[in-house]
Amino acid sequence: MILLRREVGDVLRKRRQVLGRTLRDVSASASVSLGYLSEIERGEKEASSELLAAVCSALGFPLSAMLRDVSTRLARVEEITAVTTPPVRLPLPATENFEMDDVEVTAA
Amino acid sequence: MILLRREVGDVLRKRRQVLGRTLRDVSASASVSLGYLSEIERGEKEASSELLAAVCSALGFPLSAMLRDVSTRLARVEEITAVTTPPVRLPLPATENFEMDDVEVTAA
Repeated sequence: MILLRREVGDVLRKRRQVLGRTLRDVSASASVSLGYLSEIERGEKEASSELLAAVCSALGFPLSAMLRDVSTRLARVEEITAVTTPPVRLPLPATENFEMDDVEVTAA
Repeated sequence: MILLRREVGDVLRKRRQVLGRTLRDVSASASVSLGYLSEIERGEKEASSELLAAVCSALGFPLSAMLRDVSTRLARVEEITAVTTPPVRLPLPATENFEMDDVEVTAA
C-alpha cells in the first residue's frame, strides 16, 4: 500500500537537505522536537495538519508546493503499480442458480 | 492558518457527492465508521495514511489525484493570503549599542 506519510517524509527531508539545513535547525524553527521531526521524515509518524504547516513554513516551502511534489511522486508509483499488477480476472457469471428445469426443450 | 485536513475533507466530500454516493456506502466500502468518515470530511479529524488510502480506494480516486486537487485548492488560498497580508516591515538596524563615544568628532 502506498503510504502518504512516507512520501511526505521523503519530500520534506529532500527539501531540508537541498537547503543544507540540519534537523536541529529546522526543528527549532518549527518548534517541533528533533526526534519527532526525524520520525516524520522517515515516515514513521503521522504529522498533524498544524505540524505540517509549521515544518513547511520553517522550510520556506508552501504547503501547496510540498503536496504537488508528493502527488507527482505518488503518480509515478501508482503507474508502476498499475503496470506490474496483473489484470483482475473477472469471475464468470454465477451459475449456482442455474437448473436444467430453466431450459426449455422444444422438439425441432 | 491553512489546515490540510480541511482541504482534504472538502475534496473527499466533493468527490463522493459527484459520484452520488452516501457516507454510509463509502464508509462501508472503506471499512471506516460512518461517524469517523463524516468527521474527516468536515476536517475535524486527521486521517491516517492507511485510512486515507482506504477512503480514496473506495471512491476510485487515486491518492495522487486527490492530493493534486488539494494542492490546487491550497495554491489558490496561498495566493489570496499573500495578496491580502500587508508586507512585513523590516525592523531598522538595532541602535541599542550605539554610544556617542563611538562617534569620532574631528575638527574641520
